[in-house]
Order: sequence, then C-alpha cells, then structure tokens
Amino acid sequence: MQKRLKWTGRRDGEGVWFNANVPGNIQNDYAIHYGWGDINYGYNCLRYKELEDSTWYYHAEFEADTNSLNKVFFISGGIDYIYDIYLNEKKIYSHEGMFTKVEEEITDKLISGTNVIEIKIHPHPKREGVSGRDQADNCCKPPVCYGWDWHPRVLISGIWNDAYIETRDEDHINVCDVSYILNDSSAEVEFKVDDGCTIELYSPSDELIYSGTEKTVTVNEPLLWWCNGQGNADLYTYKVKKGNNEKCGRIGFRRSQLVMNKGAWREPDGFPKTRSVPPAQLCLNGRNIFAKGSNFVNPEIFTGTADRDTYLPLVRYAKEANMNIFRVWGGAGVGKEVFYDLCDEYGIMVWQEFPLACNNYKDDPHYLEILEQEAREIVRTLRRHPSVVLWCGGNELFNSWSGMTDQSLALRLLNRICYEEDMHTPFIATSPLMGMGHGSYTFHIVENDIEIYKEFNNARFTAYAEFGVPGAADEDYLRTFIPEDEITTPTPSTAWEIHHGLNAWYPESHLWLNMINKYFGKVDDLSDICRYSQWMQCEGFKAIFEEARRQKPYCSMALNWCYNEPWKTVANNSLLSYPSIPKKAYYAVKNSLQPVVPSARINKFVYKSGELFTSELWLLNDSNESVSDKISAFLEIGDECIHILDWKTPESGESTNIKGHVLQLTLPDLNAESF
Amino acid sequence: MQKRLKWTGRRDGEGVWFNANVPGNIQNDYAIHYGWGDINYGYNCLRYKELEDSTWYYHAEFEADTNSLNKVFFISGGIDYIYDIYLNEKKIYSHEGMFTKVEEEITDKLISGTNVIEIKIHPHPKREGVSGRDQADNCCKPPVCYGWDWHPRVLISGIWNDAYIETRDEDHINVCDVSYILNDSSAEVEFKVDDGCTIELYSPSDELIYSGTEKTVTVNEPLLWWCNGQGNADLYTYKVKKGNNEKCGRIGFRRSQLVMNKGAWREPDGFPKTRSVPPAQLCLNGRNIFAKGSNFVNPEIFTGTADRDTYLPLVRYAKEANMNIFRVWGGAGVGKEVFYDLCDEYGIMVWQEFPLACNNYKDDPHYLEILEQEAREIVRTLRRHPSVVLWCGGNELFNSWSGMTDQSLALRLLNRICYEEDMHTPFIATSPLMGMGHGSYTFHIVENDIEIYKEFNNARFTAYAEFGVPGAADEDYLRTFIPEDEITTPTPSTAWEIHHGLNAWYPESHLWLNMINKYFGKVDDLSDICRYSQWMQCEGFKAIFEEARRQKPYCSMALNWCYNEPWKTVANNSLLSYPSIPKKAYYAVKNSLQPVVPSARINKFVYKSGELFTSELWLLNDSNESVSDKISAFLEIGDECIHILDWKTPESGESTNIKGHVLQLTLPDLNAESF
Repeated sequence: MQKRLKWTGRRDGEGVWFNANVPGNIQNDYAIHYGWGDINYGYNCLRYKELEDSTWYYHAEFEADTNSLNKVFFISGGIDYIYDIYLNEKKIYSHEGMFTKVEEEITDKLISGTNVIEIKIHPHPKREGVSGRDQADNCCKPPVCYGWDWHPRVLISGIWNDAYIETRDEDHINVCDVSYILNDSSAEVEFKVDDGCTIELYSPSDELIYSGTEKTVTVNEPLLWWCNGQGNADLYTYKVKKGNNEKCGRIGFRRSQLVMNKGAWREPDGFPKTRSVPPAQLCLNGRNIFAKGSNFVNPEIFTGTADRDTYLPLVRYAKEANMNIFRVWGGAGVGKEVFYDLCDEYGIMVWQEFPLACNNYKDDPHYLEILEQEAREIVRTLRRHPSVVLWCGGNELFNSWSGMTDQSLALRLLNRICYEEDMHTPFIATSPLMGMGHGSYTFHIVENDIEIYKEFNNARFTAYAEFGVPGAADEDYLRTFIPEDEITTPTPSTAWEIHHGLNAWYPESHLWLNMINKYFGKVDDLSDICRYSQWMQCEGFKAIFEEARRQKPYCSMALNWCYNEPWKTVANNSLLSYPSIPKKAYYAVKNSLQPVVPSARINKFVYKSGELFTSELWLLNDSNESVSDKISAFLEIGDECIHILDWKTPESGESTNIKGHVLQLTLPDLNAESF
Repeated sequence: MQKRLKWTGRRDGEGVWFNANVPGNIQNDYAIHYGWGDINYGYNCLRYKELEDSTWYYHAEFEADTNSLNKVFFISGGIDYIYDIYLNEKKIYSHEGMFTKVEEEITDKLISGTNVIEIKIHPHPKREGVSGRDQADNCCKPPVCYGWDWHPRVLISGIWNDAYIETRDEDHINVCDVSYILNDSSAEVEFKVDDGCTIELYSPSDELIYSGTEKTVTVNEPLLWWCNGQGNADLYTYKVKKGNNEKCGRIGFRRSQLVMNKGAWREPDGFPKTRSVPPAQLCLNGRNIFAKGSNFVNPEIFTGTADRDTYLPLVRYAKEANMNIFRVWGGAGVGKEVFYDLCDEYGIMVWQEFPLACNNYKDDPHYLEILEQEAREIVRTLRRHPSVVLWCGGNELFNSWSGMTDQSLALRLLNRICYEEDMHTPFIATSPLMGMGHGSYTFHIVENDIEIYKEFNNARFTAYAEFGVPGAADEDYLRTFIPEDEITTPTPSTAWEIHHGLNAWYPESHLWLNMINKYFGKVDDLSDICRYSQWMQCEGFKAIFEEARRQKPYCSMALNWCYNEPWKTVANNSLLSYPSIPKKAYYAVKNSLQPVVPSARINKFVYKSGELFTSELWLLNDSNESVSDKISAFLEIGDECIHILDWKTPESGESTNIKGHVLQLTLPDLNAESF
C-alpha cells in the first residue's frame, strides 16, 4: 500500500517552508512560492542563477503504526542529484545519481505516531575552473541544464520522480522481472517472480491466454511489436498476483538488430585496406527499417514536472507525422518511464542515450562508479520496453569538441553494462559513428556558400542522425514571451537573445536575419520575418528528409535536429514549439515522411527568369508494399501553375524507391508580357 | 613439489602406445613413431590429413602415497582442444578450450600405489558444410592450422603446455597475483597473496629494496619499462615465500595508452560531419612511440613443441632489427608464456590478439561461453607482462570476408573482459580499425598497375598494421625441402605449390614469377629467381617502412606481414625463413628501422635512360633525441656511382623527421659512349 506524502521545501539559510510538488524540481517550487512568474516569459529565466549553489531540504510527515507486522519502505523513482535522506533526524541513506531508484526499508527506524522524513539536496556538481556544460563533465547529471544553444542555464534538482511510503504485507511481490526469448514461431516468456505468484497473460486483444503458476510461458505465433508504418505495435499484458497484491505490465515481442547498410561491405576498395563502416541499419523483426524521425529533448526545463499529459501529444504528433523513431538525446538524459510506455503504444522506436554529451568524461574512478550504478539502473528499467531498440553512449563524444575515444573507459563500461543487462539490443558508443552524419544546422553554410540542397545531394552517409534547419515561431507566439517594448525588432542582449533568436551559437542564429535578407531583400516586418524563416525551415527539412530517403538503402536513417523544445524560443531547429505546438515545418516533414510520396530533387533555393530548371523526379516508398502511381509535375510561379509532365511509374517493389525522369524546363521570363 | 610424468599416446582404434612428448602435439608424436619424416620436407605434410578426425589418448602412471597429509593436484598449462581427464578410469574433468589452465585436486581420488591418468582428446571442431578455416568459426581454436596461404592444413591437438602432478604442503602458496598502480613519482605494488607470506622485491640491478610481510609496497622513483629504442626494459623481481615454498616473478612498470594520432582531431572537416578516426597512436609512459615491427605467427606447425629456444632467436633478431613491437596475430592464437617473458626482457611490445581471424564468429551461446572462459584466462595470464601493451579482438573481423561488426557479441564480450581484467591496457575490436590499413601483399598490384611506391606514397593512414612483399628463400634452403627431381622448375601441383611458391593465394603467389619476368626479362635460373625475388622484397619493405616513417606523426605504426613462418616455404612475406633464418629482406628492414636513417622517397622501380629522376630526401628520426647530420646522395648505375649532392640538415627536434631537398637528375643515356 502506498502512502502519498505532502512535501514542503526550504532553501538552506532561509526559514520559510514552501509547498513542494513531488515529482517536480525544487527551484520551480521556490520560484512559484515567491511569484517569479512564468520562466518562459522575458528575462525570468535569468533569476534562477541566484539559486545555483544552494542546498535544499524537503520535509514530509507521516503516521506510523509500529505494532503492525507489515514492513515499511521509503520509495522513490529518483532524486536529482546528490542527496541524503533523514528519518526522524537520523541520516539513513546517501546517494549520488538521479536515475537510481530508492527502496529503503525503514520498519525498524519508525517511531510510534508522527515520523519525519527529510531529504537534503546538495548543490550541483561543478568542475572548477570551467564554465557551461564542462562543469558537468565528471558527473552523471545530464548536462543540458548547464546551458545549450537552445536551452537556458537553469540548474535543476530535487525529487524529480515519485516518492512515497510503502507498507508491504507478507504477500508483497518483491521480484517481478519479465523477459522473453523470441524464436521463429513462438516466444518463451520468463517470469522471474517470487514463489507463490499466479501469473496471467493477455493477448493484445485482451484475451486471457495463460493463467497459472508456471514461470515459463510459451506464446505460440506471437503477434510482434512493429514500429509505426510497419505493422501494429502489439502489446501483451501480464498480471502477477500474490494475496491482495498485483503487479502488471506489458510485453512487446520484437527483435532489434543493427545490421550492415546495403552496399557497405563493398567498401573500402583497393589497398591499403581499412575496415568497412559500422552498421547503422536498424532491422526490426528481420526487416530492414528506414528510420524516420527526430531528436527528442527534455520536454520541460523543470523535467520533474513532466507527466503523461506532457509526453502524450509529443508522441502522438510523431506518429501522425509518419515518424517511427526518436533519438532520445544524451544531453537531456533519460525521460520518465511513462514516455517509454507511450512509445511502446504508439510504435515509436527509441534510440536511448546515456547522459553524456559534448564533454570529455574522463577515466575517473569515482565518475565510473556512479556511471556504472546509474547506467545499470537505466538499462534494467527500460529494457522491458519494446520501443527501446538501441542503446548509445552519448552525443558526439568522438568528435574534437568532446575528445573522447573508443578507449575512454566510460564508453567501454557502458558497452559492458549493456552487454550484461540487455545483450540482444544493439549498443553504439556514440553518434555519429563513422559513416554517419551530424549537421549541418543552417539552411545555408556561410563559410563555403553551400545550401542544404548541394550539401545533402552530394553527401553519402549511412545515417543522418542530426540535421537542423532553424525556423522562427509564429508571431503570435513570440508575443506571449517577448516583452511588448522589445517585440518590434530582434535585438541583441534582449529577450530575443535570451530566447535564442540571436547569438545562440553563431551571432546570427537561430533567427538568421542575414539569410532572410539575402534571399528576400531587406525584411523588417515581424510577421514577414517569421513567415520567411518558416518557409526556409519547411523547404530545408523537406529537401533533406526526401534526399535521405532517396539515398536508401545505403542510407538508413533520417532524424532531424530537433523534435521538441523545453521552453519558448524565438527560433529553433525544432518541429514543435513549446510545449507541443506544431510549427509549419512539422507539416512539411509529415508530408515528406509519408510512406509513399512523390519527390522532386531540388538543387537550389533561388532560380532566375530564363534559367534552365532541372530536377530528378522520384517516387519514394518505404512502405512494406510494392506501389505504382501516376505522378504529375507542375511548376508554380506566382499564381501560374505550369504542367510539366505526367509519369506513370513502374512497380516499385517492397520498400523500394523509383527514380523517374529528369525534369528540364527553361523558366519563363517573368519580365515578359505574359507574366 | 612437481612430479614429472612419462606420457605415452594412442590413436583410437589402434592398439599401439607410442612415446608422447609433453608439451607437444600428439599428431607429431604419432608421425615420429611411424617415421613419417620431417613435415617440412616435400609432400610429407599431406599425410596428416588422415589423422584429422581421430580421437586420441594420453596415458601416464605415477605412484601415490595416500597416507601423506599433502594435497595432490593434476596441473596443466593447457590442453588442445576438447578433452576429458580420467583418473584410474573415472572421468574427473571435461573441458573445451586450449588456453584454460587445469588445476584439479585429486587427493581423495588417489589409490595407494600406482595411479593411472588418461586424457582423451576429442576430434577437432569442424562446422559442417564448409571447408578450410570456416570450420573453426564457432570455436576458440586458433584457425591457422585449418590452412592458410602460408600454412599447410595440419590439425594439431594434445597437451601443448606443461602437465604434471603437484603435491602441496600446508605452506603452499595458493594465491599470488601482483599488480601495481603507477603514480607520477612512485608505484604502489599490490601483492594479492596468502596470509603468512614473506615478500621480497629486487630492483632491476638486483638490489633488495623491500623485504617483509606488507602486501602493499611503494617503490619510489621506479625505473620504468621502456620498449626497444626508447630506454631500458627495466624489470623488478619479486619473491613470495611461505615455508619451503617460493613463487617469483617480474614486474615492469609502464603505462600504455592508445591516443589520437596527431592531426586526426582536425578531421573530418565540413558537414554533414562524421566522427574522427579512432586512435592508433601507442603512448608508452606518456611518450608517443612510433611502433616499428612485424606480425608474429606461430613459430612451429606443432606449436606444442615450441620452447624458449624456439622463441629466443626470434625475439632477439627483432630487437637487433630495431623493432619495438610484435603484433601477435589472432589466427595463430596466443604463444607460450616464455615468449612474453622474452618480450619483457628484450623490450618488444606485444599487440596481443584473441584467437579470432577472418571468420564470422556468430552470436552462439556455447561459443560465447567458451570464449569468455578462454579470453579471461588469457588476459589473467598475460596482463602481468609489461610487454603486452594492447589487446585486440582478432584479425580483419570488420572486413567483408569476415562479416563481423561492432555489434558482434563476441567482440563486445572481449571488450567487456578486457575492461574487467585489465582496464588500463587499451583494447581494440579488430585490425584494421577505421583509418588503419592492411595490405597490399605484392610488390605490384596487377589489377590497377600500381607498384608499392605509388600505393604508399599516396596513402594516408593512421597505422599500417600489415603490408606484405613476398620474397623467395635462398636456393640452398629450397634444396632442403623441395625434392631433387622437382627443384629445377617451379611447377604447380608439386612441392613448389605445397610450400606456397604457387597458387598460395593468387595463381602467381608467393613466388610471382610473372613479376620477375616482367621486370628482369625471362628468368629461368633458380638462383636468379631467388635473387630477383629477394631484391624486390628488400626494396619493397624498405620503401614501405620508410614511407610510413615519413608519414609520422599522423601515421604511428608500420608492421609488415609477416615476421616469421612456422615451416619451410618457397616464398613468403616473412622476414625470416623457418625456424629463424634471416632473409635478405630482414637486413633491409633492419637498416630502414634504424632510429636515425637517411631516406630517399623513391617513386618507381624501373627508370629508363635519359629519364628525369626525382626523389625527396629525408632524415628519419624516431629516436628520443634531436639530431642533425650531413647526408650525401649518390646514384649507382652499374659500377658507376654519381655524387648528386651533400645536405647539411638542420636540427630535427626529438623524434622528428626532416624533409630535405628534392633530388632532380636527368639519368644518363646508358647507350652513350661513356657507359
């Protein structure tokens, strides 16, 4: 039986106890108490800097019956990040690491009547002598809250997951771990449960298919779990019962592999010969899947406040956009478990990273010890989710700005843990691996004057695991957080900059006014700025996603940077504005990711009167069916719509594209009479 | 106390017991008994095919005193490959795997008087439906004996390492494991030994520096172990004593790392961006070392017969040739421990591979179980050797002909085991890694008409871990194993082919008569064939080793294929003929590997009269000192020697090459009067 607690919070050195939301983050509770206002508005986020080095206390009271025969536990799904737990003023538990669950028996420490539980949250780890995310490079706290080009610096901590008192009778189910071995035509489900439990297993359509006490149950011809677009995300339900206690959960039968990309074994050619690129092709239940999706980041600055209602629209929108995968980016760590439940339900595969990103996590014994404990708990918690098809050490660790290598002990350790805990789910040390690509993150790379068209049409990668094209939010949306006296003109050192419109990375990012002015002439009107910026984001993401699909099967993945955002931004690479408002680019991507879609291979953004326009015509197909269609090509110029050709495609074959004609058309002279 | 045993052997189905040499291989003993003659001669090796699927028995007797208070053990350093041990007709032990040591207590199973120990050796593993080395792709037996382009197919097995009876008194030292932590100015030596032991520690100059019972000993300012050419291979000696028992061993203090090659972080450039290449730069005691050496293979077909006398000249010749590393190639497995003792003494670093090569070792549970046991024992045995600076999963596993990937569980398991057992020695999954090169293996790649000069002068790799240029053995040597009636002309399907002169890989390998004829005109005389072949091998290896050194520091390794050979070959890429006879190429390589050596960058093998000859002049320096020199360049044409220039080099800096002038010389017309 779970006993909810009423928590209050206090900042060390202050006498005031304020209401503390659990799960939540204590900095948020403090700000609410003192009426700091919406963190998304204007300059409000800056104020949290003053809380950075604070120590915090949580406090709750509960009544105990010391005569009961039941055992009593303090349970938490995770506390962020270094903390001590006190019961009746005695320290009973100390810990570093937010992903480890707490399950601490307190039966013999209880006093009759009112008991007091207090949790002391230590200040954030900050490596000395550095700033920004580098401060987090010897701890397992996801570094994003130390500041990123799309994330303000707001150091959060506290009871970010459930925390309650649990009383356990003699029939308490202590062990309940379910796994399976998937054979050709059956699945052997292994219930690692206490003796004396009864097990019930229900089919995806809720038929009882097993009831009994055997710990191994064979499911013949199991319905498999498929990702979106490839079949149903079928889930079986189990119930484990003992006395009045019950634990239930779901199983999705699937086999996940990372196999060689088609054609990759043929390379390298000649001598001296190096190795072939590592595999980046996801294979689900024996079927190669073109992974279409996006990079998922923390959906809230105050991650502790996220719940099913936070995650549900995000996951649902992904499914509706024809996506089949999220890369859960290591910089933001691991989501709440309900997120993975939703991914299971909606058929969204998860590429899950450990909380390492863009830092050099060195071979420090203390760090490795915490990492081992945290990573093992992460894997043990998430491995039961069929959606989690790939483990990854973290983000961009093998690039110069991080400086880790295959020899880094942290990554060798993570390989070891994934091998021990979830051997049959693939593991990669980082992204990008050799042959996979990250970036770019602008419509037009200024340094060498390359638009994304040329960049991607000339590229050859096994997977595009990140690529960004920033786009502004809507004007109305901007008005909800840019103060009225600043709204007319994007200006450095104002809310425009705090919300990443300027100087987010490059001086011009992420609004790139210079690029808008270059393509469209000097643009001053805010609604025009937003409209043009969004247009480029739509065209950019459309071009890249479709080009990646054309490069199938050598290319096996297209995941844009990024899907969502944790707060309101002026402009961002995201497809949704905070909290879950689709941008125009979302709909462009949704269109480009249709299982079957015609596509023209565009070479550049701007064409001139009288110029020869050329474009390859394709029918893209990653459905599991063979298709054919009649495709008509038109060219819109202003209100005019020129019909170029009709193409009756041949049969494609399953999950196979068809390359069609090369459109060639001399563009009309817009200055001529007829225009 | 060790009791040596007198072993006899028997082939299943035959009544004859023959003398069995332990350590050794039973097929060798059988052949000796039946007078099959030297396996190196003529066609003799073919006869061993008839023994392939046999079961074998070893037999030995010993007296036991059942009234003694001592414990009695059967000990073996390793038995090849699947076997059962019987004591007085009762099976007491069954095992698969040749690298696991046997330490089986038999005290309570002994009978008074004569005891009989028998070992049944099962037939070799052979996966069905395939031939050659593929038959070994789900076992941990090194595949080389299944046949290679330079190794005849001779399936060996038996007691390949020591095997004896040991009686242990109450003072027996059960545990004796020594490790150390190397700090900036001291080493903490940890003796994991039984309580009650006395420990003595001696310096490299044999001074007693510690005597006592403390299990942690601090050595201040320890002398470090350096590889050849960089300092002394200093070794400390320890003695652990208990009663009348003593165990001793050696410690070499060193830190081994694999770090990024200089310049590698600057790549890749541009977007989309993939990762930087993995590190291939060995760093010993904080100093980047250019690894110069060769690929070491089994020194005998009957590996069990190898002993210190076998290994000593091989290791000594390597040191004399200015080498500092052996890559102990996975196809031949792991050598006897005395080999590593010699490498420790002579300062030869060892890149040690596990017994996987050129096969796809699949994710089979039984295979993984045996691999874990074997690999763990290999690491536990060898980690104490300072020479073992690098672990590697095996040979060419990430190339198409093997078909393994980073996801292969065998390699993830090996990474895990090395992490657990020897974390601070680097581990790589295979060779080549991305950016490292293997091959080519001919002086002239026929397919695209590229000589090794062009091939390597245009290459850019972090490490050349294999490259071969075959050369014939001496004529006199050939006469010792090619039958007299075949010696005049290399002919297919004769001893010339059996000994790899023809059809070893390509039809023309490894003698490449067509290439000799191309360069030198039709050559019939055997001594000319040998001489020209050796000339090309000398020039080829000289050119590649020196070019690799020129490419330092981006390039960090040059290891030719291969160093030695396990039997007499007509022609081979090796530098030594069996058993340890330097070929001409050995001396060429020795010259090219001098710490400081002038080098001309040659572009091709053949020049014509009147042609413009150009060549860059370099002073190569991988000594730890700054050097300068006066270098004179000459061109020899027949008996003429033309002095081209004198070059007074500047100071090089430590371990730094100097690029000098580009020689440009119009070659004289050999048809003119003066010639």
